[in-house]
Amino acid sequence: MTAENKRIYIHDVTLRDGFQIEPNFIATEEKVSLINRLSRTGLAKIETTSFTSPQAIPNLRDAEQVMRQIERVPGVVYAVLVPNLKGCKRALACQVDEINLVMSASQSHNQVNLRMTCEQSLGQFREIAELATRSSIFVNGSISTAFGCPFEGRIPESRVLELIRQLLDTGIQGVTLCDTTGMANPEQVRRLCEAALGRWPEVPFTLHFHNTRGMGLANVVSALGAGLCRFDASLGGVGGCPFVPDATGNICTEDLVHMLEEMGCNTAVELDTLIEIARDLPAIVGHDVPGQIMKAGKADRKYSRPEWIVNPKEPVALADSRTD
Amino acid sequence: MTAENKRIYIHDVTLRDGFQIEPNFIATEEKVSLINRLSRTGLAKIETTSFTSPQAIPNLRDAEQVMRQIERVPGVVYAVLVPNLKGCKRALACQVDEINLVMSASQSHNQVNLRMTCEQSLGQFREIAELATRSSIFVNGSISTAFGCPFEGRIPESRVLELIRQLLDTGIQGVTLCDTTGMANPEQVRRLCEAALGRWPEVPFTLHFHNTRGMGLANVVSALGAGLCRFDASLGGVGGCPFVPDATGNICTEDLVHMLEEMGCNTAVELDTLIEIARDLPAIVGHDVPGQIMKAGKADRKYSRPEWIVNPKEPVALADSRTD
Repeated sequence: MTAENKRIYIHDVTLRDGFQIEPNFIATEEKVSLINRLSRTGLAKIETTSFTSPQAIPNLRDAEQVMRQIERVPGVVYAVLVPNLKGCKRALACQVDEINLVMSASQSHNQVNLRMTCEQSLGQFREIAELATRSSIFVNGSISTAFGCPFEGRIPESRVLELIRQLLDTGIQGVTLCDTTGMANPEQVRRLCEAALGRWPEVPFTLHFHNTRGMGLANVVSALGAGLCRFDASLGGVGGCPFVPDATGNICTEDLVHMLEEMGCNTAVELDTLIEIARDLPAIVGHDVPGQIMKAGKADRKYSRPEWIVNPKEPVALADSRTD
Repeated sequence: MTAENKRIYIHDVTLRDGFQIEPNFIATEEKVSLINRLSRTGLAKIETTSFTSPQAIPNLRDAEQVMRQIERVPGVVYAVLVPNLKGCKRALACQVDEINLVMSASQSHNQVNLRMTCEQSLGQFREIAELATRSSIFVNGSISTAFGCPFEGRIPESRVLELIRQLLDTGIQGVTLCDTTGMANPEQVRRLCEAALGRWPEVPFTLHFHNTRGMGLANVVSALGAGLCRFDASLGGVGGCPFVPDATGNICTEDLVHMLEEMGCNTAVELDTLIEIARDLPAIVGHDVPGQIMKAGKADRKYSRPEWIVNPKEPVALADSRTD
C-alpha cells in the first residue's frame, strides 16, 4: 500500500444516514444550510435525503423541500436514497444527480428494513434502474449487512459477490458495500474488496463503514490497501441502525479526511472548514457526537511548553518520568 | 498482509499508563486485584506500575506494595516503567521481570517529562542497562513522541532510527515506539515500522498507540502489515498525557484483542474474561471510559428480530427503507 497522492472520494451521508434516526425533527432550513456549507468543502458526493414514507422516517419527510431549496455546486454529486419505485419517481422529479438503491445481503434484515424479500427488492431495482437510466441518472446499489447481519451473523463472501453480480445485472452502475452495524474487520474487508475489485475492476465500489466496534478507520486502511478509493462517512460520526440500539454511528467524515490527508492521500476536501461545520453539529442534533478531531484538533496541533521549562528559575532537576 | 493465525503479543498498560493520570488514588488492593485478574486472561505482558517519585506520580506511589502483593502467573511478563537509576534499583529489589526505560525523541518533551536532555537520558540508560543485565533482567527502551511531539510537531524518521540505534548501543534489548499524543497515521507507521524492522530484524519492537485522533486501531493494522506483532493497550482505553489535556487514552485492550481475533490472529487472550474485567473499570476509576466493545458487544452479537417479522399478523407490506 502506498497512499501518497492517491485521489480518494469522500461521500458525506450525514443528512441521510446520520439524521434518519434522530428523534427530534431537524428543521428544513437547518438541513439546507448544512448541505450548502458541505457543498463548498470539496466533498465528492453528498447524500442529501431519502425518498421514503414520512411514517417510516419522519425526520426525512421534507425530502422534496430539501432538494428544491439547496444551492447546487458544480462538481458535487447530490445523491438520494431510494427504497422503491415510488421513491424513485419522487427523486427524479427533484432532478437528483444520483439514486442510491438499498437492499440487504441477509433476508431477515431486508424483511425488517424494507419489508420485502431480497428477490422482491431485486425485482424493483430492475424497474428503477430502467427508469433512472432513461433519465440519464446514475444508479448506485447499496448492499446492507454485507459484512454481517445483526440477526443472522456472518454473511458468506460468496453471497455478497453473487448479490453484486445480480445488482449489476439489473443495470445498476455503482455498488456500495455497507457494514450496517459495525461488524466488519480489516481482514474480511481486504478479502471482500480484493475479490470484488478483481472480478469487476471497472465498477466504482464504495465502502460504507460504521464505527460501532472501533474498527471503522482500520477498515478504511484495509480497503485502501485493496485499491478502493470511495468512502461514505458522516459528520461527527452521527448515525446508527434503528434495529440495533447499541450500533453507534458511521465513521466520522472529518476524522476520515484527517487520517487520509495525514497519510498523504488527496481528498480534495478543505479539512479546516469541514471541522468548523462539524463543531456546529452537536447544537443541530442536540447531543454530543463521537467525532474525535473536532475535540482533539488535527495532528499538527501544537501545545505550549510549560512555563517552568521555557524560563526555568533554577537549573532543571533530574526528576522522574510522568508519561510515555 | 495475511493475519490468519499470526501470533500477536498483547501488553496491557492500564495500571501504569492508564492509572498514572487518574486524579483520585486507586487503592492498592484494587490494583493488585486487577493485575491478578488480568494475569489469568492470557496477556503476554502486564506493565504493573512505575518506579518514579511519589511527588511526580502520586497514583503510583504504591509501586513496591503492588509488586510484592500480586500473584505471579507463569508465562506472564511483569514489567515496570523506570525513569532513572534510582527507580531501577527499586524495581530490581522487587524482582520485576522486565524494566521499561523511557525517553522522548524530542528534546522539549524529554525536558518536560523527565527534566533531562535526551543525552542525559541516554547516559542513565547505559548505567541502568548494565545493572539490569547483571541481574538478568530484560531491558526495554520506550521512545516517546516517536511519531510526533505536541511541542515540536513531526519527528523525522531519521531521528527515530538514530535513537533506536543509540538505545540498542546502551544494551537495551527491546524497543517500544510510542505515539504519546495520538499523532501517528497509518502511512507513517508503515514506513517507520518497515525501516526499523528492516534494519534490526532480530529486535523485538513494540508499538504503543494512543487513540486521540481515532487512528489507533488503523495504525495497528498498518503495523501488522509491516510485520510487527507486539502492542501496548489499556483496558477501556484509559490513559492520556498530562501535558496535552485533550489527548485521550491508549488504544483499548479489549477492542484491540477483539479486532485481532476477528481478523484471525492468535492473541492467546480470553476475550470474554477481558471484557468482563473491562466492564468493572469505570467503577474503579470513577468515570466513563472510551472502550467500545464493552458497550457494543463483540461482532458476533446477535439481536432478536422484531416480533412483527417473526410472527406477522398480516402479510408483510411493501414499505419503505429505514437504514443501510
